[in-house]
Amino acid sequence: MLDGAAIARQIRLELQDRVAAFTTVQGRPPGLGIVLVGEDPSSEIYVRNKLKAAGESGLRADLRRLPATASLHDLLDVVTTLNGSPIHDGILVQSPLPAALGRDAEQVVFDAVDQLKDVDGFHPENVGRLVQKRPYLVACTPLGVMELLARSGIAVDGARAVVIGRSDIVGKPVSLLLMHRNATVTICHSRTRNLPELCASADILVAAIGRAAFVTPDFIKPGAVVIDVGINRVTDAGLVQRLFPEGSQRRADFERRGSLVVGDVHPAVADVAGALTPVPGGIGPLTIAMLLANTLKAAEARCSASR
Amino acid sequence: MLDGAAIARQIRLELQDRVAAFTTVQGRPPGLGIVLVGEDPSSEIYVRNKLKAAGESGLRADLRRLPATASLHDLLDVVTTLNGSPIHDGILVQSPLPAALGRDAEQVVFDAVDQLKDVDGFHPENVGRLVQKRPYLVACTPLGVMELLARSGIAVDGARAVVIGRSDIVGKPVSLLLMHRNATVTICHSRTRNLPELCASADILVAAIGRAAFVTPDFIKPGAVVIDVGINRVTDAGLVQRLFPEGSQRRADFERRGSLVVGDVHPAVADVAGALTPVPGGIGPLTIAMLLANTLKAAEARCSASR
Repeated sequence: MLDGAAIARQIRLELQDRVAAFTTVQGRPPGLGIVLVGEDPSSEIYVRNKLKAAGESGLRADLRRLPATASLHDLLDVVTTLNGSPIHDGILVQSPLPAALGRDAEQVVFDAVDQLKDVDGFHPENVGRLVQKRPYLVACTPLGVMELLARSGIAVDGARAVVIGRSDIVGKPVSLLLMHRNATVTICHSRTRNLPELCASADILVAAIGRAAFVTPDFIKPGAVVIDVGINRVTDAGLVQRLFPEGSQRRADFERRGSLVVGDVHPAVADVAGALTPVPGGIGPLTIAMLLANTLKAAEARCSASR
Repeated sequence: MLDGAAIARQIRLELQDRVAAFTTVQGRPPGLGIVLVGEDPSSEIYVRNKLKAAGESGLRADLRRLPATASLHDLLDVVTTLNGSPIHDGILVQSPLPAALGRDAEQVVFDAVDQLKDVDGFHPENVGRLVQKRPYLVACTPLGVMELLARSGIAVDGARAVVIGRSDIVGKPVSLLLMHRNATVTICHSRTRNLPELCASADILVAAIGRAAFVTPDFIKPGAVVIDVGINRVTDAGLVQRLFPEGSQRRADFERRGSLVVGDVHPAVADVAGALTPVPGGIGPLTIAMLLANTLKAAEARCSASR
């Protein structure tokens, strides 16, 4: 098991010195503005975790809340204000936005974030710079995957990597990062034929599809490194019973809470894989650590540019 | 053999009506500004072909020449003038720039081109928009590859595609375009292990490495579609003799000129592949056709935006 939580703690520890130095020199801490629209329960948890982590690391983090009924115009106003704020170096608009804002709302809002404050790495110019191997701010989860591989001593150069999922948030950027580190990368998706067989050619398999326990042992080359990016909330008792043995901690957790967070990787993969990230406690904590790292990076870049 | 030249002619024919309509409405043709620094012989040929093709299709194309001794500042001045020019809708800075301008000169210059006039699709915002599947202007050669596949009736959806080469100009953008058309794409490069074996899994193989006749029959699954993007000028008589039989037209061409343009794909691949693009007369003409298409697109977009 690759201990993402421990690596994330280590990264946050390393950030603290830089945060302290920045705060001393600038007379203020690096600042992160988080925008949350509506009251989606998962988003509430994610935002709370991000605020807590920022505070623990010495960053300033401010939450701007808008009601679920807010208009796109209201939301863009908040973004514009944060773009102009001298004390906010990073801006994050929590996804998903309420469906009522329309299908394209997220991209419109992400485009409106100042690219120099775009700590989610969603602005097209930041995405383009990543493709061109001169990244500025890169999406946090893919960065977390790369940090985990590097700090776990996993060789990427020359490896065959297969990424399942082609999202803008994970699949595409992690593929680019792996390729730039000299992996030979295949991106799979819902239209891929012979998916298990193809995945079984991977030295490094990244699962980012959003389907609980989708990746079963037949997808895995014995000894392969398996990175589970999925965060799926399962409420189906039958599924939990099929995945976890009676008397296990996970079953007990489910029975207590009525739901369980399960990755994209089936628990039985642990018997075949050479290394595997758990869910929870794998990539999740790293995503938050990289958000803090991006905010500090944006803060340092803004302040060195304005000198 | 996939007749790229014939498909390019067809595309240019289709563009003519739109060019004529634009010219009537706007009182001027779509305009392309080409910037050429120095006197690289290959660049001279490419630029001449682009100017000729633009003229034949009813576009205005102006060449701005700078001496090989021009400074980066001089070059950026020319770009800035073209950015502000009301009669130029597209701007192309011919690559490669003289080495004396420094390693990063190309990216600095490409970044300086107005992204709305960036008919080469090299600006990071255009690259980012391509990744996000909302392309505006996309690099011409990858677009040409996709047009060729579409107009030749080659199924991309569900196909396994392997791209050899990870350049910003061809390898990465063509991989993204293929993936967005539901191919399962693997990008290979100099650090890829078992390259021939991996390529032999491809239904569609795109060779964009810049090494003459590098892709030999053992790379090819029988019946596969092979797209040869390479344009390599060969002056080695021994290589030409190994590639082409005595008495062939290609040998005669070499003996007359002292050089020969050869693709990345070995001629013997024709015996194994189901379909293959020739060099010359394959992707080259399509690249030029897509440059004209991009210029017209930029012209139409600029004029509809300014209404």
